Amino acid sequence: MKIAIDAMGGDHAPKEIVLGSLKAVETFEGLEITLVGDETKIREFLPGENNSIRILHTEEKITSEDEPVKAVRRKKKASLVLMANEVKEEKADACISAGNTGALMSAGLFVIGRIKGIERPALSPTLPTTNGNGFLLLDVGANVDAKPQHLMQYGIMGSIYMEKVRHITKPRVGLLNVGTENGKGNDLTKKAFELLENAPINFIGNVEARDLLEGVADIVVTDGFSGNIALKTIEGTALTLFSMLKEKFMSNTKTKIAAVLAKNELRGLKDELDYSEYGGAALFGLRAPVIKAHGSSNSQAIFSAIQQTIKIVENNVVSKIEEEVKHLPNQGEEQ
Amino acid sequence: MKIAIDAMGGDHAPKEIVLGSLKAVETFEGLEITLVGDETKIREFLPGENNSIRILHTEEKITSEDEPVKAVRRKKKASLVLMANEVKEEKADACISAGNTGALMSAGLFVIGRIKGIERPALSPTLPTTNGNGFLLLDVGANVDAKPQHLMQYGIMGSIYMEKVRHITKPRVGLLNVGTENGKGNDLTKKAFELLENAPINFIGNVEARDLLEGVADIVVTDGFSGNIALKTIEGTALTLFSMLKEKFMSNTKTKIAAVLAKNELRGLKDELDYSEYGGAALFGLRAPVIKAHGSSNSQAIFSAIQQTIKIVENNVVSKIEEEVKHLPNQGEEQ
Repeated sequence: MKIAIDAMGGDHAPKEIVLGSLKAVETFEGLEITLVGDETKIREFLPGENNSIRILHTEEKITSEDEPVKAVRRKKKASLVLMANEVKEEKADACISAGNTGALMSAGLFVIGRIKGIERPALSPTLPTTNGNGFLLLDVGANVDAKPQHLMQYGIMGSIYMEKVRHITKPRVGLLNVGTENGKGNDLTKKAFELLENAPINFIGNVEARDLLEGVADIVVTDGFSGNIALKTIEGTALTLFSMLKEKFMSNTKTKIAAVLAKNELRGLKDELDYSEYGGAALFGLRAPVIKAHGSSNSQAIFSAIQQTIKIVENNVVSKIEEEVKHLPNQGEEQ
Repeated sequence: MKIAIDAMGGDHAPKEIVLGSLKAVETFEGLEITLVGDETKIREFLPGENNSIRILHTEEKITSEDEPVKAVRRKKKASLVLMANEVKEEKADACISAGNTGALMSAGLFVIGRIKGIERPALSPTLPTTNGNGFLLLDVGANVDAKPQHLMQYGIMGSIYMEKVRHITKPRVGLLNVGTENGKGNDLTKKAFELLENAPINFIGNVEARDLLEGVADIVVTDGFSGNIALKTIEGTALTLFSMLKEKFMSNTKTKIAAVLAKNELRGLKDELDYSEYGGAALFGLRAPVIKAHGSSNSQAIFSAIQQTIKIVENNVVSKIEEEVKHLPNQGEEQ
């Protein structure tokens, strides 16, 4: 299996990308990685030649400040674009970047392309739940003006992933909504509810944002705007609480002792909420697996993203989505 | 000043409603409260006659399970409906309920009515921030299919409230969005951005969900669907983290000692996040102040909601909204 990786994307590139890739080729037999980026900078972290790692040199890169669509169109030699090209030209089975999310989505759409019948790809991270299983949230921002049939397709794509890769039988699909009762919601969710009810998935109805982390569903579908709000609210609330907690523990001698006593357990809490353990966010709906690793990924997070990508390729998630979409009543093509 | 209060709404009604009202009439001179509900049950918690508290007896009530619009139309003698009637008939200046949110919104719309020129009322809770000031989030669900001009009106109503009642000079209005850059967002936020830029408010641009609790803005405007998702995600994430934290502290002897040592500070953390301290969620855009107290309100939360309501009445928030709306370019009436 061959995976192309953007060596220049993310806060800790290229170091952590290279280290994660090294660990992956040592762990997974038959894995070949193409690191796309500045060869000199990549070589700093590569001990000599490695038969399983190839470098595709380029000095151009897309930064987090670049406007995504323009950057992908203009910076034709950027590491992220060349990475997507590897997949398009079938030199790689899948690709991973920890760089500019918008640019990765654009490169996915323009360079790799959509699966026929899928109207919009969906960015799909797995978020932590208290039971340790996690849930797939999609879409979190690939498509901020979603239509009902997009949400239905998200339910199908998410189900295939959770079943094939995470081995959950009949994964429960919930629709993110303002209440759990049928008939709740805005125009979009009311129409999506009907489509989801008739889709070949295990649809459990509406779910509320307050129950997400309790594992109320295995897959939660929503439009990219609301999904982005939910994702960032979870991140922001958790970060704020942790920093307040830290402050409380530093407030006096007694609390400082308490912090030392409970150190391991508190660290455990943070780990349980660390969703990089689940890998990156897949962009479902494209002709090949495209994975967005978190911008702050360390080598372990990159390793997890590679492991996840391997599973997506091995389990033929893309061709299963293609197959499933063929059997859907015609929803109309891209407008 | 006269305030009508639904004595039967909320998880701890009528006890906590009555106790909160008693404390309020003892504290605020000239305050008269009409408690609407079952007289026998209310009297259980009222020590003898009180010149400042009047009871409007009714046995009918709306439960949390009732379908809001139907309940308000059919249960004409429900405590919540009679409470709104008191305001309509100008026997009260404002009203408060901790009961069914949807029913309160319906009673507000159908019984009390909108301010001329305001197209949609907005449910507006104040949420905690780390700096202790809190921010006003609107709308969190009164109107799940919002139009750009609604969001602009939310910005105006929120600004008047924060300026007049919370005494914040030039309160900063942010638009909840998927990124901070101009031009980000879905159709709704892109159009709302332009209107907000030209509104007579201190508009600071887009804000992201991840920065809400850090106090990135004094007022955050959004459609009722996304606002509801943000609100419930904050609540859910905080509750989940607290329960995980509690579990960690119960895991062994060392952590149990840590919990005892840091007890006060941890309780302090919970208090800082307790937004009932800021009062209830006002429904802005109606002809009189209508306040939704949290369903789980204790007497202190009811007291806070009454105090907040007094300030809204005293500072003529409603007539100031009326005045401001008159000067707006015609946005078109209710569609």
